[in-house]
Amino acid sequence: MSMTVWTYDWVPGAERGPRGFVRDVRLRWALEEAGLDYDVKTTPFAERDAKHFERQPFGQIPFLEDGEITIFESGACLLHIAKKSEKLMPRDPAGEADTLQWLIAGLSSVEMVSVPWWFLSISGAENKDLTGWLRKRLDHVAAVLSEREWLAAARFTVADLLMADVLRVPKVRAFAESEGIEKYIERVCARPAFKKAYADQVAHFVAAERARNALT
Amino acid sequence: MSMTVWTYDWVPGAERGPRGFVRDVRLRWALEEAGLDYDVKTTPFAERDAKHFERQPFGQIPFLEDGEITIFESGACLLHIAKKSEKLMPRDPAGEADTLQWLIAGLSSVEMVSVPWWFLSISGAENKDLTGWLRKRLDHVAAVLSEREWLAAARFTVADLLMADVLRVPKVRAFAESEGIEKYIERVCARPAFKKAYADQVAHFVAAERARNALT
Repeated sequence: MSMTVWTYDWVPGAERGPRGFVRDVRLRWALEEAGLDYDVKTTPFAERDAKHFERQPFGQIPFLEDGEITIFESGACLLHIAKKSEKLMPRDPAGEADTLQWLIAGLSSVEMVSVPWWFLSISGAENKDLTGWLRKRLDHVAAVLSEREWLAAARFTVADLLMADVLRVPKVRAFAESEGIEKYIERVCARPAFKKAYADQVAHFVAAERARNALT
Repeated sequence: MSMTVWTYDWVPGAERGPRGFVRDVRLRWALEEAGLDYDVKTTPFAERDAKHFERQPFGQIPFLEDGEITIFESGACLLHIAKKSEKLMPRDPAGEADTLQWLIAGLSSVEMVSVPWWFLSISGAENKDLTGWLRKRLDHVAAVLSEREWLAAARFTVADLLMADVLRVPKVRAFAESEGIEKYIERVCARPAFKKAYADQVAHFVAAERARNALT
């Protein structure tokens, strides 16, 4: 059965806006890597109704429909999809644990610092302690990447997909100032599955913008 | 085979310090819930050597040893332990997906905001946007908890363990000002497995403090 990735019907489209970075890209990318069928449906960005909160209690996207199951949180969706394809996560216990720890590290050790740092930087409220904390976290990631090509299990896994998506946010990528991290992002994002997922998302939001402009 | 939870040999012990809140408590608690054997070993808090970074690339704790496997990130360790016990996560696909999404929500939708908020508050650098963001996230959690006793699968799961541990941080708990959240924390932390894990961690660090004071 085909799965459905839910995203917004539209997002604000400034030149450096979120197009290409909305988190449904993580799910599209994982499904492309796994070679699984999916379609994409949308929920309004502007008005988040009860039905949206029923499926995503924080009023965000993405969420994934898989038959009777609806699952939210991009990290949880990635682990759900990874259960269906060895391409995203090895099946031996050690490889599985390695992939799991690095996927969670992307969320809890890097994104937990990079997103608030980015969020404060938008309003010009940078905090030096938070900046120092992000620097340390990125330095640790760079140290690991100086010794290996992929984070887990000596091969591409869903942990690389997540970590590269966290690191490729333009402000974070520029702040990293690390050749190792830059080459890692390039390596992971050179994958055809990423290119397709990214292009599909951008096309989706560009079409939405055109439709919106035609109406107004 | 018995598992090993790794934590620090000592942590600074101010009255409102981290004793009882160091994240090895999450692993102890999950192992107590699951009824699995474990022991606890320590790595120095003060000097984090190469061996520590080999096992936890960000120089933190906890990490878990399970035979040949070492796994870091408390969230990943919880999911690893949950694979071994239905008490932590139901075995039907819908219950599993529900538990997974709420465990990740605890990390990525709540802790990703509460920890940086708490971190900035230590240095008196509260940011009103971050405070507003945390308020919204806690309101969403409170709305969900107004309708049900447990987050996922209509029963206690590892998602409640994680979410309650995120919410019970004293500053976050006080800021929430939500009867629903307060009652939820009380309900989850009334579990004997939590009480044992908490008491064991406090005893561990109190003993470490006494040993340290005896030496100096």
